[in-house]
Amino acid sequence: MRNIKVTIEYDGTGYHGWQSQENAISVQRVVEDAFKKLTGENIKIIGASRTDTGVHAYGQVANFFTESKIPGEKFFLAVNSLLPPDISIVHSEEVQEDFHSRFCAKGKKYKYLIYNDRAPSALLRSRAFHVPVPLKLEDMKKAAGFIPGKKDFSAFKASGSSVKDSVRTVTGIELQKKDNIIELTVSGDGFLYNMVRIIAGTLIDVGMGRIAPDELSSILESMDRTRAGRTAPAHGLYLVEVYY
Amino acid sequence: MRNIKVTIEYDGTGYHGWQSQENAISVQRVVEDAFKKLTGENIKIIGASRTDTGVHAYGQVANFFTESKIPGEKFFLAVNSLLPPDISIVHSEEVQEDFHSRFCAKGKKYKYLIYNDRAPSALLRSRAFHVPVPLKLEDMKKAAGFIPGKKDFSAFKASGSSVKDSVRTVTGIELQKKDNIIELTVSGDGFLYNMVRIIAGTLIDVGMGRIAPDELSSILESMDRTRAGRTAPAHGLYLVEVYY
Repeated sequence: MRNIKVTIEYDGTGYHGWQSQENAISVQRVVEDAFKKLTGENIKIIGASRTDTGVHAYGQVANFFTESKIPGEKFFLAVNSLLPPDISIVHSEEVQEDFHSRFCAKGKKYKYLIYNDRAPSALLRSRAFHVPVPLKLEDMKKAAGFIPGKKDFSAFKASGSSVKDSVRTVTGIELQKKDNIIELTVSGDGFLYNMVRIIAGTLIDVGMGRIAPDELSSILESMDRTRAGRTAPAHGLYLVEVYY
Repeated sequence: MRNIKVTIEYDGTGYHGWQSQENAISVQRVVEDAFKKLTGENIKIIGASRTDTGVHAYGQVANFFTESKIPGEKFFLAVNSLLPPDISIVHSEEVQEDFHSRFCAKGKKYKYLIYNDRAPSALLRSRAFHVPVPLKLEDMKKAAGFIPGKKDFSAFKASGSSVKDSVRTVTGIELQKKDNIIELTVSGDGFLYNMVRIIAGTLIDVGMGRIAPDELSSILESMDRTRAGRTAPAHGLYLVEVYY
């Protein structure tokens, strides 16, 4: 059996997230179906990140085992015509037998797009979160400065999450504004459930003046989800890259 | 009667172009319907540019006459909730009675997006034209250099067009590449039918090596549509701005 690693771009708007589930169309299922058609095998795909409904990806990574003779680097060319246009395999290669897209991942990079203008954007309607009031970018940057490092991120974890160890390392966070689009980029060794969306929502609350920038420090220390801001909606979030 | 000028952003994917027609949904009709609901009047909207099916706009301009007492600069806030999310009114203001969005326009700016990568982009599938073979950007820039100026653009006019005077002034043309996206920007006092898409298609043919950069000069002089390249597809085209 050969182990094939693929990089997948998708528009999450039309899918109930990455992971296959009963009675709902998922990216994983659609990609599996395409590789089944291509190889004639009962392909099972393992994804690095279980992105939620509406979340997009430039670089989701997945792997699968196959008996197919198609060269590793040719898979992406062969399969795209079997996929709907809102999912694209942008890279493929053969990897070692022990490569596992999730367990071998050393880190991930996400971005969150905020459309900051009075009127909503028609072209970014399902690609960026519309915030109609002006955001104070410098305050958001100051608040973001408290986030990087190895710490317990319980304050930024969805309240229903059952994960026990909430210590993660955020290696980088950046806020950039171009015209009326604010782009938040966050990298780290791993993320708790909804963590990037809660970081985005909290920074938006800072930008609106609802939370003072310096409060980020005590919010993190409190490990109390109710002290942080709201969870920003899924459609502004992109999985950009998975590091190995 | 008051004359209201509005700036409209739209995702053209779901519409049969700007202009109202029988048995097809157009941006103009949808915007008119929203203003009818808002004012209770039988609003007729005049657009600056009759964009084709699938063409997008950041800055289509239109105007209409109304008896409504809504302040000019408040119209856009009031109407967006009556519009589908793929159309957004981003600006509104009251203008002089003699303002006409089409006849008063002094120029327009368009952009054309090319996605130049082996695999198609899921996120840009209806927003950029996918060209899978590598394009020679320097050749495209050299060819583009022949286009600006006041000249007869018959070679870049859709063959069925009935316009008699094909002289137009292209005031600026620019090609920029960022990652795998090539952005062509063209400004001018006016454009013939399909002119920007034929310019884009011809420059793509240059980038592929099908047309030599220097040939642009003789193609323009020939005034022969068959000498220029193909018409690039509508979904890569954006009306960026209308100048007054």
